Amino acid sequence: MARKNVYFTAGPAELYPNFETYLQQAVDEQIGSISHRSQKFRDIYKFTDEQLRILMNIPEGSAILFTGSASEVWERIILNLVEHESFHLVNGSFSEKFYKYAQSLNKFAHIYEKPLSEGFDYNEIVVPEYTELICTTQNETSTGVMMREPDIHKLKRSNSKRLMAVDMVSSAPYPNLDFSVIDTAFFSVQKAFGLPAGLGVWIANRACLDKANRLKKHDGLHIGAHHDLPTLWRNYEKFETPATPNVILIYLLGKVAEDMNKKGIDNIRKETDEKAKKLYRFIETHDSFSPSVQNPDHRSKTVIVADTKKPSADIIDRLKKKNIILGAGYGPAKDSQIRISNFPANSMEQVEILISELNQM
Amino acid sequence: MARKNVYFTAGPAELYPNFETYLQQAVDEQIGSISHRSQKFRDIYKFTDEQLRILMNIPEGSAILFTGSASEVWERIILNLVEHESFHLVNGSFSEKFYKYAQSLNKFAHIYEKPLSEGFDYNEIVVPEYTELICTTQNETSTGVMMREPDIHKLKRSNSKRLMAVDMVSSAPYPNLDFSVIDTAFFSVQKAFGLPAGLGVWIANRACLDKANRLKKHDGLHIGAHHDLPTLWRNYEKFETPATPNVILIYLLGKVAEDMNKKGIDNIRKETDEKAKKLYRFIETHDSFSPSVQNPDHRSKTVIVADTKKPSADIIDRLKKKNIILGAGYGPAKDSQIRISNFPANSMEQVEILISELNQM
Repeated sequence: MARKNVYFTAGPAELYPNFETYLQQAVDEQIGSISHRSQKFRDIYKFTDEQLRILMNIPEGSAILFTGSASEVWERIILNLVEHESFHLVNGSFSEKFYKYAQSLNKFAHIYEKPLSEGFDYNEIVVPEYTELICTTQNETSTGVMMREPDIHKLKRSNSKRLMAVDMVSSAPYPNLDFSVIDTAFFSVQKAFGLPAGLGVWIANRACLDKANRLKKHDGLHIGAHHDLPTLWRNYEKFETPATPNVILIYLLGKVAEDMNKKGIDNIRKETDEKAKKLYRFIETHDSFSPSVQNPDHRSKTVIVADTKKPSADIIDRLKKKNIILGAGYGPAKDSQIRISNFPANSMEQVEILISELNQM
Repeated sequence: MARKNVYFTAGPAELYPNFETYLQQAVDEQIGSISHRSQKFRDIYKFTDEQLRILMNIPEGSAILFTGSASEVWERIILNLVEHESFHLVNGSFSEKFYKYAQSLNKFAHIYEKPLSEGFDYNEIVVPEYTELICTTQNETSTGVMMREPDIHKLKRSNSKRLMAVDMVSSAPYPNLDFSVIDTAFFSVQKAFGLPAGLGVWIANRACLDKANRLKKHDGLHIGAHHDLPTLWRNYEKFETPATPNVILIYLLGKVAEDMNKKGIDNIRKETDEKAKKLYRFIETHDSFSPSVQNPDHRSKTVIVADTKKPSADIIDRLKKKNIILGAGYGPAKDSQIRISNFPANSMEQVEILISELNQM
């Protein structure tokens, strides 16, 4: 068998170390055949819910819901939480997609846009008067720009009557978000949780449910038919889902979250910080690279983007021959940037090997 | 390790015989980490597309698209193909859900309803005048009632200016549907394809795309933002998906479809018919059981439902002790019916064991 690749891509990504063991357990337990209306499934959902709740400090009043992908959650959030107006902080392809979803759903979507590679601070943000939902992207996967948690919390606190959504697709569970402050957040499992794609996770509080229930009663408006929030929530109360979900991935997510809890979220954050520091120090000091995000406060800890002097394809191809897979820049930056994931599944040892290989470029 | 269960449940169901082998191949090839924008992914999509096209005789003009589930497709079909009015043939929980999705999406949904366990013939159906989309359920999973393919084809032929959707969730690839006649159909992989849940498959022709493009231009209407048909189709043209899909399940679906093609769809249909005949003959002749669908023409070949004299829970519990898992009746029939899947993964040998166990009830 060929030597295995090590993935430093921002998702799909390197799989979590115990992934194969847990997948084998799922096969042995025939998780692929069990009914999603069985006690066994409800136990799996409950376990994954508990582990995520511990890991990310999610309070009791919030629900943890499952969809097909995080992109689907963008749509569900707009349909269920916005009657007329949303407001979007946009500085890359994914925050822009969230904004465009709102437009496609005929909402009046306000935008505060920054150039790629620039981030948002709390004190510069002016929220339009009739905004019902503020949409932030904690970690913009396309550009490696993050919004610091305290800025997110301040933005919500000063807009307490509006709802606040946080896209944490490519950073969860790293960011220390206060779920007693923000209203809703979401991520997908093929990023920092190190699992194959096929499951979105949507965290929402009662204020979201109340809003969705209000909108549901409106004539001439609909909140969607599939995975609308009230239906997801009603099923969640008995640890079920409205339709057959990706049972195996819910099972695996619980196992990985349990592993992470054994390690401790503080240790995971510390290791992430240490690896990020090493990677940024390297790209700051090496002649061929420079950090594409100028302001250190806005540099993502989980998706690290470097401008390259050489065409990025040359670097990516040379590393591929060594079984190291890097991401290219996104969209217009495809040829001039590399993107490096710094997820829990990317070990310090792997990061050091990557740096030593990049050092020879 | 405990003895493995044999699943006769209507989905999630018994897994396809080579499932574990192909899953191991996916793990070895690191399919869980590859980018959905890579050539490797496009090759996987293309392969699965080709194998399904052969298996189900899908013509070139139709696209094969992936969603999170078949339930999601109900929503996408209504959003993308109906401006005002849909028409639904309803005779069970799942055909009713399709109808209710249309209502939730504020469409004027017409219904022609039959009692549970009864089916539809072409010549009794009167399509309301302004119907844009006729929604049929080829195989109603909740009651084991099927609609014969010739009736479906005649219904479309006599309504050539309307679109026709066919729910084949729990029967595909068994029904011999003429995809040059019907416009759109869909299924999920955790039924007759014998895979874990987490992927919906949506087949749609150009007439569907044209309609969705027309509706997209309407003011005051939207066709959804996530997985809308024009976006899915545009991505499909390069064998990509708009968002990260369930890459591993797309890979596995291609492998299972290839296995089925090696066996030949005619042989699969023949075996299905033979097993169905055995099962129906048994429940027709045994004192404790009777077929819940009276009209033999409307009896599903893939989900066989029997009325039970004893409470069905007694039968299900006794078989469970022998590692045979049966489904209960759906909804109101929970205690008085058993449901038996007859999918390609349920072998004749297994069916014979099941019959001999049921014979002792």
